[in-house]
Amino acid sequence: MILAGFGAFGTIVGRLLVANRVPTTILDFDPDHVDLLNRIGMKVFYGDASRLDLLRAAGAETARLMVLSIGDPAKTLEIVETVRRHFPQLRILARAHTRQEAYDLLGAGVDDVYRESLDTSLRMGVDALRMLGRRATQAHQAARTFRRHDERAVRVQARIEDDGEFRDSASKAIRALEELLLRELEGESDAGDSSWDSESLRREHAERG
Amino acid sequence: MILAGFGAFGTIVGRLLVANRVPTTILDFDPDHVDLLNRIGMKVFYGDASRLDLLRAAGAETARLMVLSIGDPAKTLEIVETVRRHFPQLRILARAHTRQEAYDLLGAGVDDVYRESLDTSLRMGVDALRMLGRRATQAHQAARTFRRHDERAVRVQARIEDDGEFRDSASKAIRALEELLLRELEGESDAGDSSWDSESLRREHAERG
Repeated sequence: MILAGFGAFGTIVGRLLVANRVPTTILDFDPDHVDLLNRIGMKVFYGDASRLDLLRAAGAETARLMVLSIGDPAKTLEIVETVRRHFPQLRILARAHTRQEAYDLLGAGVDDVYRESLDTSLRMGVDALRMLGRRATQAHQAARTFRRHDERAVRVQARIEDDGEFRDSASKAIRALEELLLRELEGESDAGDSSWDSESLRREHAERG
Repeated sequence: MILAGFGAFGTIVGRLLVANRVPTTILDFDPDHVDLLNRIGMKVFYGDASRLDLLRAAGAETARLMVLSIGDPAKTLEIVETVRRHFPQLRILARAHTRQEAYDLLGAGVDDVYRESLDTSLRMGVDALRMLGRRATQAHQAARTFRRHDERAVRVQARIEDDGEFRDSASKAIRALEELLLRELEGESDAGDSSWDSESLRREHAERG
């Protein structure tokens, strides 16, 4: 596995992988990080992770996964482009700061996008629900439903390029999710779930367009 | 519940709570947000959430929880100070951007601190481990262990004010966590877990200091 960007986000991913004995190569801009990483036994290449020669040296031709967690969105897209062209077998997991960045990354061919504060905000919501007396199973189920549908909506929206259509789709997605969560709360069946399926959302869009 | 700050983070917390029928009052600086929130039926107060009169108007005297997810760390600490002094019954859940911000918030009397990218980086790590063939249960267990111990370490470190001691404690915590994860992987017992207990870490510090 190759990991580019060893700030707060990448550090946690890297520590978890190394602790689970995944051979991990780090690409990093910051010489301070490089020093620290060498001390804890990671293989580190110092430099610009969008450079083809550095990627080759880091083993991009044989690696299976590439984790992108650098802070600069433009640089991230540059790396994605290089990797997609030269190392098509590499599965890319990328951190996004915002929803818009998630659309850009998906559009550029990233396989899996992680919006950086999504899971923590959901955990905070779950904790708040529990502190207010809701059952743990109900709170967790609501968060799972929320995330699943929000992830689908992001993938659908990433494909919609017209801005007017896009705004429409985004607010519709928010309303539909709230309705779904309310239905769940009332103990109704999850029958409406298929309306959230990305295929049907896309079809709907095609029909309207 | 009162929620201050309705950016990407607060939006998700708020939507989850409102969808689960928690009466939620939003304090927000941004008039655009206020307009949107009114449209989806939330009660909104527009203004500086560190102002005592605004907090009173929002119901801080009778609310049970306050969620802080505004972008400005200094403003967040200001709100914490006001709330701690005037509404001691309010439990505060606050988002932190960095580890250092987490120390500051805990030091200022926040009950629960959520480092914004912690959970998402762990999910990315879990997904990477699964893509590389590790069992789901093992990957999830490693992430849970990681987070539990990291949270404890943050609480302990928040109490250590001397900078020299602090750096020492931080790198020790990282090494100990990695050792623990490796032990777990090897199927050994969790006997070393007590060394991670915050009480024993603090005691150790007191003895050394």
